Amino acid sequence: MIRAGIVGGTGYTGVELLRILALHPEVDIAVVTSRSDAGKDVEEIYPNLRGVLAARFVEPTPEAFRGCDVVFFATPNGTAMRWAPALLARGIRVIDLAADFRLQDPALWERWYGEPHACPELLPEAVYGLPEAHRAVIRGARLVACPGCYPTAVQLGLLPLLEAGVVWAEPLVADVKSGVSGAGRKAEVSLLMAETGDSVKAYAASGHRHWPEIRAGLERAAGQPVDLVFVPHLLPMIRGIHATLYAQLKDPTVDVQALLERRYRDEPFVDVLPAGSHPDTRNVRGGNRCQIAVHRPQGGATVVVLAVIDNLGKGAAGQAVQNMNLMFDLPETTGLTAAGLYP
Amino acid sequence: MIRAGIVGGTGYTGVELLRILALHPEVDIAVVTSRSDAGKDVEEIYPNLRGVLAARFVEPTPEAFRGCDVVFFATPNGTAMRWAPALLARGIRVIDLAADFRLQDPALWERWYGEPHACPELLPEAVYGLPEAHRAVIRGARLVACPGCYPTAVQLGLLPLLEAGVVWAEPLVADVKSGVSGAGRKAEVSLLMAETGDSVKAYAASGHRHWPEIRAGLERAAGQPVDLVFVPHLLPMIRGIHATLYAQLKDPTVDVQALLERRYRDEPFVDVLPAGSHPDTRNVRGGNRCQIAVHRPQGGATVVVLAVIDNLGKGAAGQAVQNMNLMFDLPETTGLTAAGLYP
Amino acid sequence: MIRAGIVGGTGYTGVELLRILALHPEVDIAVVTSRSDAGKDVEEIYPNLRGVLAARFVEPTPEAFRGCDVVFFATPNGTAMRWAPALLARGIRVIDLAADFRLQDPALWERWYGEPHACPELLPEAVYGLPEAHRAVIRGARLVACPGCYPTAVQLGLLPLLEAGVVWAEPLVADVKSGVSGAGRKAEVSLLMAETGDSVKAYAASGHRHWPEIRAGLERAAGQPVDLVFVPHLLPMIRGIHATLYAQLKDPTVDVQALLERRYRDEPFVDVLPAGSHPDTRNVRGGNRCQIAVHRPQGGATVVVLAVIDNLGKGAAGQAVQNMNLMFDLPETTGLTAAGLYP
Amino acid sequence: MIRAGIVGGTGYTGVELLRILALHPEVDIAVVTSRSDAGKDVEEIYPNLRGVLAARFVEPTPEAFRGCDVVFFATPNGTAMRWAPALLARGIRVIDLAADFRLQDPALWERWYGEPHACPELLPEAVYGLPEAHRAVIRGARLVACPGCYPTAVQLGLLPLLEAGVVWAEPLVADVKSGVSGAGRKAEVSLLMAETGDSVKAYAASGHRHWPEIRAGLERAAGQPVDLVFVPHLLPMIRGIHATLYAQLKDPTVDVQALLERRYRDEPFVDVLPAGSHPDTRNVRGGNRCQIAVHRPQGGATVVVLAVIDNLGKGAAGQAVQNMNLMFDLPETTGLTAAGLYP
Repeated sequence: MIRAGIVGGTGYTGVELLRILALHPEVDIAVVTSRSDAGKDVEEIYPNLRGVLAARFVEPTPEAFRGCDVVFFATPNGTAMRWAPALLARGIRVIDLAADFRLQDPALWERWYGEPHACPELLPEAVYGLPEAHRAVIRGARLVACPGCYPTAVQLGLLPLLEAGVVWAEPLVADVKSGVSGAGRKAEVSLLMAETGDSVKAYAASGHRHWPEIRAGLERAAGQPVDLVFVPHLLPMIRGIHATLYAQLKDPTVDVQALLERRYRDEPFVDVLPAGSHPDTRNVRGGNRCQIAVHRPQGGATVVVLAVIDNLGKGAAGQAVQNMNLMFDLPETTGLTAAGLYP
Repeated sequence: MIRAGIVGGTGYTGVELLRILALHPEVDIAVVTSRSDAGKDVEEIYPNLRGVLAARFVEPTPEAFRGCDVVFFATPNGTAMRWAPALLARGIRVIDLAADFRLQDPALWERWYGEPHACPELLPEAVYGLPEAHRAVIRGARLVACPGCYPTAVQLGLLPLLEAGVVWAEPLVADVKSGVSGAGRKAEVSLLMAETGDSVKAYAASGHRHWPEIRAGLERAAGQPVDLVFVPHLLPMIRGIHATLYAQLKDPTVDVQALLERRYRDEPFVDVLPAGSHPDTRNVRGGNRCQIAVHRPQGGATVVVLAVIDNLGKGAAGQAVQNMNLMFDLPETTGLTAAGLYP
Repeated sequence: MIRAGIVGGTGYTGVELLRILALHPEVDIAVVTSRSDAGKDVEEIYPNLRGVLAARFVEPTPEAFRGCDVVFFATPNGTAMRWAPALLARGIRVIDLAADFRLQDPALWERWYGEPHACPELLPEAVYGLPEAHRAVIRGARLVACPGCYPTAVQLGLLPLLEAGVVWAEPLVADVKSGVSGAGRKAEVSLLMAETGDSVKAYAASGHRHWPEIRAGLERAAGQPVDLVFVPHLLPMIRGIHATLYAQLKDPTVDVQALLERRYRDEPFVDVLPAGSHPDTRNVRGGNRCQIAVHRPQGGATVVVLAVIDNLGKGAAGQAVQNMNLMFDLPETTGLTAAGLYP
Repeated sequence: MIRAGIVGGTGYTGVELLRILALHPEVDIAVVTSRSDAGKDVEEIYPNLRGVLAARFVEPTPEAFRGCDVVFFATPNGTAMRWAPALLARGIRVIDLAADFRLQDPALWERWYGEPHACPELLPEAVYGLPEAHRAVIRGARLVACPGCYPTAVQLGLLPLLEAGVVWAEPLVADVKSGVSGAGRKAEVSLLMAETGDSVKAYAASGHRHWPEIRAGLERAAGQPVDLVFVPHLLPMIRGIHATLYAQLKDPTVDVQALLERRYRDEPFVDVLPAGSHPDTRNVRGGNRCQIAVHRPQGGATVVVLAVIDNLGKGAAGQAVQNMNLMFDLPETTGLTAAGLYP
């Protein structure tokens, strides 16, 4: 059994991680920490886990993780980078669900996240935890940075086209729609149901933190600079991301459907839908799957890729467990077989 | 392995049943029938099951169920009663998720369901599949009638009080709120998102088909006639039932919290929350659990019981599988361990 | 033109009041105050009012209301009672949308609102602003306390029965469902869309501040003590209150439908639906109307009254304007003719 | 007073038209027809209009419109073109809210709407009812084709850029999000709340009927062919359209904010938000306004225009009334002053 610690178990990615790990056959949840809720039972904060997980939040201290094989950070940005060096030094592997190790360049991190990086020396070792692109290096990794929810959907949709070189590197447009849980469990007026229910808005249209992360991933795949425009939108739903991706084909006769099917043929969690499909976010709700469809409006040069994930599943906690499975040589789908909740 | 057939797999209870059974370790889904979608892959109608269940809808014919150990009917009312005699005669057990075998009195059935009962001779044998009240007889049953979603929530909330005789049998008020999936996957204007979103209404306030079923269950528990008022409401949510139940205590000093905790101490799927709690339907969404809390407003004689379930889980497909587990001597929780999806 | 001041214009009742008054043909909005947003344009906080209302929030100071004929308080509880004496002394009439003047007994106020009342000497003069019950005294009033949203719906539903003495005074059950805007524009985790969307819960089942207010109103109508149980519920919708009210008829042969129709025949904002109806909250959304229906489940002794309002309209800002119209001898419906927004 | 007839008053655009016209000070609703609901009171189908509009649906016959000055068609596509010639011949003006007269080319109409056009001879006379682009010709028109909801939002966002020639004509991307009321009041499984609530999907990504209409409008403005990609999405909300529009600037130093402000300075219903804004659909809910913001992600060559409308307001019934006001020389804003309903 893998002994797992979870830091910051009181956010939405934290509770989703607990929900998955509580039923994971190869994991023993050794410790769950929370600064704000230390001393309380997990089920007091998350009654959905009553009868499923008997655990109590403890203060996050170095001793708390004694005996752990791996520690997950489901924390705000800027937390994991303060803990990772000590944990790694003690042989404990680290999986960060936040942004601390997603960007390789510490200057870029500082610009977008507003503070100097606390352990730039670890950045070269950190592995970007998108298994569909980096499976081999994840297997041996000590430190994995799980991609953001937006970057997961956008990259899974565009990587095959850029790897194959069938689209131009500019302009790439990612118009992405997210449910409100992506914004976290924060007491903010702008996230109230009375504010976000029955309404839609774009936000951070001039620049969002996930933009440099996505661009870096796409450039790795393309082997060249890309010109990416990324506009996120907040939707009146709870879970789900729908990425609508626009790129220009170099050769309009290429069979993009076949290309995507080939690229993801052996992927357990990426599912290319039949030609003509339009994926619904609900079909992946609660699971670790990404569903993708591709269209060529009016048969023109623009290819439109539609990719959906559960932002808390494949976009966060599910993908973190997928990475853990790889890191610990378990079958990749262990504990992640749940189907989407429909309706 | 239990070989299971599912009739009518294209409604919401059908797809939920498939979702649960596809991952049930002791079940092999032998056949799934659908009149309207015969010949299509299940995943074409329910893309949430892609990669989880490879099956094709077939026409419901007597031959289709050859070799089955059990057949589930996730069909409109009035279907199972036409099939049950032949299936039982061939040694196939039957679990009906509709209303055909819920009422013991065929005249009552005809009055509320608008047609004569097709096999009244089977009614005495049919077992009402509420395990928390009838576990022993379910174990040996050939024919189980799963309770309706409303009756499940209302009975789980009120049975302990009536069994113990601590409340008067009249008046009992059940004010119950349901998500729209309870109305089924029917093309009706009144169920459109534009009609039901952001609005609430009562319906069938003068008389709903679940009323005689609930009353019968309560009278069995009370051992006397009860005067029940039941008003269902349609809410702008997808899954979930919240029953708010009002009864008059004979003796206001009785400790109802303790009574409920004692009654459900050993129940795997009924969870009495700590005193002062208010259950959310979301905490049981996607699972087979019922969460219950109890209040005494202003310390008066009226006791208020709050009970929540997922109408498609404990209120339908989950309970059907719980019954199957009992009928086939499996551990009762097999395949039903999922936690509620939160948020 | 009536010169109106609005205190606390940044909550949901405040913006609804501004939306109504901006188009009211007899009102000039003289001043809008907000402690938190002083100096900002109203349209910056409420872009729905762009092009409709050009005003700037100012600090609430005594001078700010110079020249006003009336001041509305759309503030938290405990604010209006600190301002009212000085305003009244200067001849400015006061309409409070909060709770400060709803209860006649200062001890009761202190018990439920947690602080001593600041001007108990004004309580005898304060008029309870439910026009359908107190129209005559509202006309001459200087100080009007607008009823709470729950109390408005419950009283409009039950008053006719109690006034006519056709139901017993106990037990009365008010099971009431509210949209989230009723909880106000507060940064609280429990009001996030990710928490309240697609879920329902009861709250304050053991005792809610609106209980003593409702009870007092019902007792005035009944002329005797009543035993009221009131359980509020939070629903995944934005606006709307649906009260489901249960009472025991003394004589089951009484024609309650006719009684209600007669009682409200001349009321411009209370609409008794045809027999057999079930009101939807959406049909009164954005307006000042209350729609009511009545049922007798199974023809028994329990009468069920269904009453819907918009909690921000007839439950708050609309009713406040209705009171103002009465106080200033305007036709009662002036500025309040909007139909419900459907769908 | 203008005597108005409404054909097809039982869809969502029909009821919204009734809601607006019932309170329009210069309109008398002379007749409302409905094939399916003839003989019923309007308030029976639309209880939100109780007390606001006393009218009865009648069969649509030629005699029904006797004495009308104008007839609105809130009907399915292919209806108005069968009625328009006879009405115009009798001097009755026609405003079509459907697609019959939106495309100038009858062959194009036939290709996208699946049947030959019934009166191609009227197409040259039909005026495209987007006042912000065609106000002058609308004033004198006998026959006005109201733009579709998507085309309204997309054109209002892109026209200024194309008229000014500051963006390239290709590729233009219109990623548009719509509430479910845009799909109409049709009994379809795909529009059920259980299907569309808490989920998002694109649809008709390979080609939607509004595409040729939008393209034609943009080409008129650009004076040259444009390459438009248009992908509509169905969102879990009731009303609202959010268009996210991507174009490539010829000269990245152009001040697009100033250009938009200048273009719409005198428009009563198009509101350019301050730089940096992100419009919410809720802020225009229930009104006839369009709110627009503009962004330049990362200061690059791609300009992103965000435009929101209420699909039933400015996208349908509101715009139809705006056109009527122009056709009958009334102030353009008559009857259309309502502010958006917030929250």
